[in-house]
Amino acid sequence: MKILGIDPGYERLGVAVIEKPIQGKEVVLFSDCIRTSSKSKMADRLFEIGQALSLVIKKHKPDAVAIEELYFAKNTRTAMTVAEARGVIQYICKEQGLEVFEYHPNTIKIAITGYGGAKKEDIAFMIPKLVVYDGSKKLDDELDAIAIAITHLSTYRPTIE
Amino acid sequence: MKILGIDPGYERLGVAVIEKPIQGKEVVLFSDCIRTSSKSKMADRLFEIGQALSLVIKKHKPDAVAIEELYFAKNTRTAMTVAEARGVIQYICKEQGLEVFEYHPNTIKIAITGYGGAKKEDIAFMIPKLVVYDGSKKLDDELDAIAIAITHLSTYRPTIE
Repeated sequence: MKILGIDPGYERLGVAVIEKPIQGKEVVLFSDCIRTSSKSKMADRLFEIGQALSLVIKKHKPDAVAIEELYFAKNTRTAMTVAEARGVIQYICKEQGLEVFEYHPNTIKIAITGYGGAKKEDIAFMIPKLVVYDGSKKLDDELDAIAIAITHLSTYRPTIE
Repeated sequence: MKILGIDPGYERLGVAVIEKPIQGKEVVLFSDCIRTSSKSKMADRLFEIGQALSLVIKKHKPDAVAIEELYFAKNTRTAMTVAEARGVIQYICKEQGLEVFEYHPNTIKIAITGYGGAKKEDIAFMIPKLVVYDGSKKLDDELDAIAIAITHLSTYRPTIE
């Protein structure tokens, strides 16, 4: 069971592929932070994100995708443009035949730390204890993507087994 | 010169292809309202929109795309999900090699009626006077898509001629 976790964004998009073995801890097979230039037009940035995500899916062949839920708290240009990126992400995942699961930020925090009010550093502290990876330094966006994938693996129960 | 005008949405997406002849009024070659079911998941609706839009582009081969600018006035679920649809639209247009031009709602109103405070019915009243079409009844979403395409044709001046 391989899950692609995505931390949506248009400037930095965190992606991580996590595998659940029969026994033992989940393993991070891949993680990256896809970046686009602020000098590019929004349509070009969205296109770059979609193309890069397509490549990740084709290479790692995940079984499903987990993504952070649409965020309604602030009506800023950033929130709206992150929503544009989320649209592209969902389109690409469906195009590749993948089901998309969405998780509320609090669900992710609880899955990782046991506490819905956890901070970024609490997540960063817990991740190395929950999954196996090469020990390389990860960016926040990658850690968030890993956290989202872990959340899916630890909370999702298929209705038909 | 063929322009694809798009009125962004995820429930109803207005599309119109307008051609500018050497002389005379612009002609509406095609218009439609792409709909998705509220029973479908958002990712599926976004995928349907993207696929339907791809088909329109492949069939009508426009030279460029004009779309209404991202709307920041309200922070509702609708506004955020329309932004998701906008993301898909921009991705598909770039995938098909088309440049995407964005117009503010007021710019569109001024281009069609000469007045930035124009109402929906003012736009609907003016469109048959500005473009040639088969006279069939058009939905609001189609009229908006036609209005956006007209705006591009009447305001865009390429920097290199």
